[in-house]
Amino acid sequence: MTTDGQEPMRLQPIGRVESPLDERGRAPRQGDEGAPDAWLVFDPGVSAGLRDLEVGAEVILLTWLDRARRDVLAVHPRGEKDRPVCGVFSTRSPDRPNPIGLHTVQIVAIDGMRIRVRNLEALDGTPIVDVKPLLGPIEQR
Amino acid sequence: MTTDGQEPMRLQPIGRVESPLDERGRAPRQGDEGAPDAWLVFDPGVSAGLRDLEVGAEVILLTWLDRARRDVLAVHPRGEKDRPVCGVFSTRSPDRPNPIGLHTVQIVAIDGMRIRVRNLEALDGTPIVDVKPLLGPIEQR
Repeated sequence: MTTDGQEPMRLQPIGRVESPLDERGRAPRQGDEGAPDAWLVFDPGVSAGLRDLEVGAEVILLTWLDRARRDVLAVHPRGEKDRPVCGVFSTRSPDRPNPIGLHTVQIVAIDGMRIRVRNLEALDGTPIVDVKPLLGPIEQR
Repeated sequence: MTTDGQEPMRLQPIGRVESPLDERGRAPRQGDEGAPDAWLVFDPGVSAGLRDLEVGAEVILLTWLDRARRDVLAVHPRGEKDRPVCGVFSTRSPDRPNPIGLHTVQIVAIDGMRIRVRNLEALDGTPIVDVKPLLGPIEQR
């Protein structure tokens, strides 16, 4: 697929999640709902991009939820069948046209290309696509 | 490119930004730094996913920054040459391996497949890839 004849919008994995979570049915719905710590294992090719990350920092992690369905536009929130069906763009369901996972995590250790983060609900093997800082007040950016 | 023999991670545009901003050099760096209001014009195919979005809500918008460079791993923060070069994953630079834009915007009007939002720094024509709710306290999810 191309975007109106432009370049295809193809993501490039920059690393993978290494986590004890390996089954979607047993993963917490969000990181702050009891998710375990996990390692982010980055590709050596992106090391120059990582060099200013620090232990203690909270960062935004974007992943590609590779076990999600992409043909879903409405879901029961949190999979709870007694709640009315809701448009996916009003939910955090992994099943959505572009299954990008958005996680706010704290860095608890850094070991070369491996970065350990607190409370990540992404499954083992999930591709990492980006890391961004949280935005502080304008004058500190 | 494939991810270790898996499906390629290809984003599908679900709409486009319609904005008076059409030049990167003149766009504010973040939405809250004087960016104008913009229309999000969605593809009719995703209407079922949008139906629970409401005027007044703050949402997270993900875009594909199609005018960004993808071969950049270190930048001067905010393009300010007197600041030391910094790894891109510690900045919000649009130039990065996977140029996904992350914007928190408030919905100010809804007109069918067109949703107007406050303070968006994305350029005219930027592909939209996802909309997500902000997460409230656990018991309200």
